[in-house]
Amino acid sequence: MGRVTVRRKVLRVTPAGARTRPDSLAAEEPLETRVNGRPIAVTMRTPGNDVELAHGFLLTEGVIAGRRDVSIARYCDGVDDEGRNTYNVLDIALADGVAPPETGVERNFYTTSSCGVCGKAALDAVRLSTRFPPAADEGRISVETLTRLPLALREAQRVFDATGGLHAAGLFTRDGTLLAAREDVGRHNAVDKVLGWALLQDRVPLTGCVLMVSGRASFELVQKAAMAGLPILAAVSAPSSLAVDLAEEQGMTLIGFLRGDSMNVYTGQERVSTEAETAEHA
Amino acid sequence: MGRVTVRRKVLRVTPAGARTRPDSLAAEEPLETRVNGRPIAVTMRTPGNDVELAHGFLLTEGVIAGRRDVSIARYCDGVDDEGRNTYNVLDIALADGVAPPETGVERNFYTTSSCGVCGKAALDAVRLSTRFPPAADEGRISVETLTRLPLALREAQRVFDATGGLHAAGLFTRDGTLLAAREDVGRHNAVDKVLGWALLQDRVPLTGCVLMVSGRASFELVQKAAMAGLPILAAVSAPSSLAVDLAEEQGMTLIGFLRGDSMNVYTGQERVSTEAETAEHA
Repeated sequence: MGRVTVRRKVLRVTPAGARTRPDSLAAEEPLETRVNGRPIAVTMRTPGNDVELAHGFLLTEGVIAGRRDVSIARYCDGVDDEGRNTYNVLDIALADGVAPPETGVERNFYTTSSCGVCGKAALDAVRLSTRFPPAADEGRISVETLTRLPLALREAQRVFDATGGLHAAGLFTRDGTLLAAREDVGRHNAVDKVLGWALLQDRVPLTGCVLMVSGRASFELVQKAAMAGLPILAAVSAPSSLAVDLAEEQGMTLIGFLRGDSMNVYTGQERVSTEAETAEHA
Repeated sequence: MGRVTVRRKVLRVTPAGARTRPDSLAAEEPLETRVNGRPIAVTMRTPGNDVELAHGFLLTEGVIAGRRDVSIARYCDGVDDEGRNTYNVLDIALADGVAPPETGVERNFYTTSSCGVCGKAALDAVRLSTRFPPAADEGRISVETLTRLPLALREAQRVFDATGGLHAAGLFTRDGTLLAAREDVGRHNAVDKVLGWALLQDRVPLTGCVLMVSGRASFELVQKAAMAGLPILAAVSAPSSLAVDLAEEQGMTLIGFLRGDSMNVYTGQERVSTEAETAEHA
């Protein structure tokens, strides 16, 4: 649809002076997702890969678990003032027997009936809703492979270099092979898009895979990874406390500050083979 | 409450080897905001300044416009499994005559009754709901002052240096004086906290002020700034296309890539006095 970037004029100000020049911006538009005709969410996203985005969102909210849980995904045929299709409303028809979300799905993870909402309640809700707990006997990933992921993700980012304004998420196998990378103005959307791709490829649960994100690791990103059965989440920046708590609770491996040749392993160290160990095994 | 950071053990892996050491993480906990007893939003936030956060959220969603629109803000007295107050549910009682939000306020900005949701509809909704359009005749800010803001915000960030994991928002006067700075794991929350502070100080609309954010400038951040009557929003990183569209539509000044001694001025150039002009006026 050619809307991933938008050209605008900008006044560039440097010590050498101010001059007007063209600039590329990351496109941002609202996407409304409907389930069986009923609106359930509006997200501000970078247009493109919207079908993946909707599938990933419904997967990580616990509504669907496989591609066969969706019968049809299509854009509504509404138009804007100038008669053009907006491509901003996506209608998902669930397969027979798949229950639609009760209400706004964003709220389903939290207990709102008492004053007891807390981190523990949030952890409990995710544990109860994950269909794909990571297996304890899965293989390991080497430190050397992990240190290659940020550059591999960066190289896969087509739009970032032009706009500087996009979050990225990449799905890798444990030997460092890139399966898919997606970008978005919203970090959750980039993750939903790449997980939706995996679901449409019948690759969920993502046993033996690694999700790499360009920014921080929040509770919600760990939650999304857990809902897709991912054993390992790696982030360029810092995790939050509840992200670490959830990764530990789920038996996942959480890596932060993955930059250059170093990283912090917060949970699930048993899945990471350090160089010292590699040397021992050699 | 001492929950802004949390200590955890981490396995630090570098070429020199792997060793376990203590690490500080940015705290993240859910906050449920209730209006007149009814839950309206749950956000994952860094605990602290929750009353500001709730006021800022309700201001930028168009529910309140001044501190007198709220009669009482208090934590519910619910407790967790161990009998401690969770401090994660805040109940806001609106003053007489202030209408509570109809439904989940997050969705009120978008038209969901047709297939026509689009960037333009989002812009229209904000224009209709802003109570404080920026005045055209406001004064200017110098390039020299602008280039000092990122460091001033950085110096005000108490927690970032310890955790590396927090977004920041700072409110400045046009001469570069810092009024307030807040941090959070969520970028929207950092902005809501600083705007809530301003509202509680009776400083809204924020005529003559600048909001500086540590990351990107999204549509939603421009929207929040517009709802608080801010004429200028400056960001360390890139804006999105719809952020620029909304700033232009609102007559706001939007600055991005404000780093070192340079910046991009996307809209409202008339409020920025460049060095060349300063020299002319000297």
